[in-house]
Amino acid sequence: MHVEYDGTAFSGWQAQGGSPVRTVQGTLEQVLSLVLQERIALGVAGRTDAGVHAKGQVASFVTRSALPLHRIARALAGLLPPDVAARELAVMPEGFHARFSAIERRYVYRLLDAPRPLLARQAWWPWMRLDAGALTEAYRPLLGEHDFAAFAARDPAKRPPKHGRCRVRRLAFVRWEHGVQLEAHANRFLYHMVRNLVGSATWVTRGLIDPADLPRILAEGKRSAAGPTAPAHGLTFEEVVYKEAYAPIGEHVDGWGRSLS
Amino acid sequence: MHVEYDGTAFSGWQAQGGSPVRTVQGTLEQVLSLVLQERIALGVAGRTDAGVHAKGQVASFVTRSALPLHRIARALAGLLPPDVAARELAVMPEGFHARFSAIERRYVYRLLDAPRPLLARQAWWPWMRLDAGALTEAYRPLLGEHDFAAFAARDPAKRPPKHGRCRVRRLAFVRWEHGVQLEAHANRFLYHMVRNLVGSATWVTRGLIDPADLPRILAEGKRSAAGPTAPAHGLTFEEVVYKEAYAPIGEHVDGWGRSLS
Repeated sequence: MHVEYDGTAFSGWQAQGGSPVRTVQGTLEQVLSLVLQERIALGVAGRTDAGVHAKGQVASFVTRSALPLHRIARALAGLLPPDVAARELAVMPEGFHARFSAIERRYVYRLLDAPRPLLARQAWWPWMRLDAGALTEAYRPLLGEHDFAAFAARDPAKRPPKHGRCRVRRLAFVRWEHGVQLEAHANRFLYHMVRNLVGSATWVTRGLIDPADLPRILAEGKRSAAGPTAPAHGLTFEEVVYKEAYAPIGEHVDGWGRSLS
Repeated sequence: MHVEYDGTAFSGWQAQGGSPVRTVQGTLEQVLSLVLQERIALGVAGRTDAGVHAKGQVASFVTRSALPLHRIARALAGLLPPDVAARELAVMPEGFHARFSAIERRYVYRLLDAPRPLLARQAWWPWMRLDAGALTEAYRPLLGEHDFAAFAARDPAKRPPKHGRCRVRRLAFVRWEHGVQLEAHANRFLYHMVRNLVGSATWVTRGLIDPADLPRILAEGKRSAAGPTAPAHGLTFEEVVYKEAYAPIGEHVDGWGRSLS
């Protein structure tokens, strides 16, 4: 399923083993288990952090239930709280897994040009204006496959990743209607990576980091040489790209149960 | 000043005489009085209800302070909470008043085509899809000057208005990116009027009100014959139109203090 959520009131995606913390995974698994009358465990493309939003998160599960997909969609629409929704559901071929079948994740971090109360929940006003062209140029050396340890935090809730290598295909600051946004596409992202890239961009803008030093900062891999972590609420997990082999088989419906196939 | 706010956490515009309730007027007057070192009282174009948003609300005040406008703007940007901002400030000619100089108010009520968590704070999902063309047609007899008592609630906090006549210049359901919105332009609006027009549109859609009965419902002026009140969060006060005579004199700055003149 494609899942959209407003991350503000969630402590991130990942369910925290029986603790009463409200997570997206916990909320979805609880409702799905109720609807399908069996214990559902979700796989997911990106385990977003507390406060981070998602427009095109993808989650998958296996069920023995014979309930048609359009009825599952209707039940979810009725039972989920207003800050999370399944926007699409599809039956996928054997072996598909939301996490392991994905080849690229796409994030957007939105920044504002001025304080905008009606946009402030999903975009950050950094008290400065960013130069999209100059920053895209400055970040060009970060494209390709590198160890991004300099831009990663240690996730206290998880084991450290086996390695810090990410293959970054796109890292562009582009103007949107109300400011500048960083579009980041990669096969994987480290903890806080996009937010640290944005925080570092504010330091570049303020002259605290010389753009010419970025390749060295990346190569040395010392977190303390990069900039601060931008707040979670500006970040949205936009999209996931899957291996070509995977296409829906059988029912494919929207969040209201209408056929899309 | 042009004021933008996210109405979610405010009990409407109007300050409630010393009560601890959080209002937009109270928040702005407190900060302005601090910045200008005198007691500031705001006039306003539209006293929006609890939960209603504003993108182009207009408020005016008189001050003896000699503080330049760009410094007032900067101070407001620094002191206001993130859910309200002054987007523009201008020095206006003698006699200008945000409320009494206005000739038209413009509201937009946004409805969704499907549950959308990332849009749910500023648009309503009514569990049905509306037909924009058919509803615009059905509401055509409401254009022009009429008594809109059938679509008005009694505001418990205020004296009832002297009369219910409103000159409605536009009342159109149009498609936006994620659904249908009602655009309502009139010289004035009664309490809950736009929300009741939207609630009635859902009843027309469900077949509970025959569109042919709308002129009679309007003429008879019985609130019970119209539909329910749509929730506040879908409504945004978009814009105010002023008499032509009024244009900024002197300083005119944006919310960050930059000159716009």
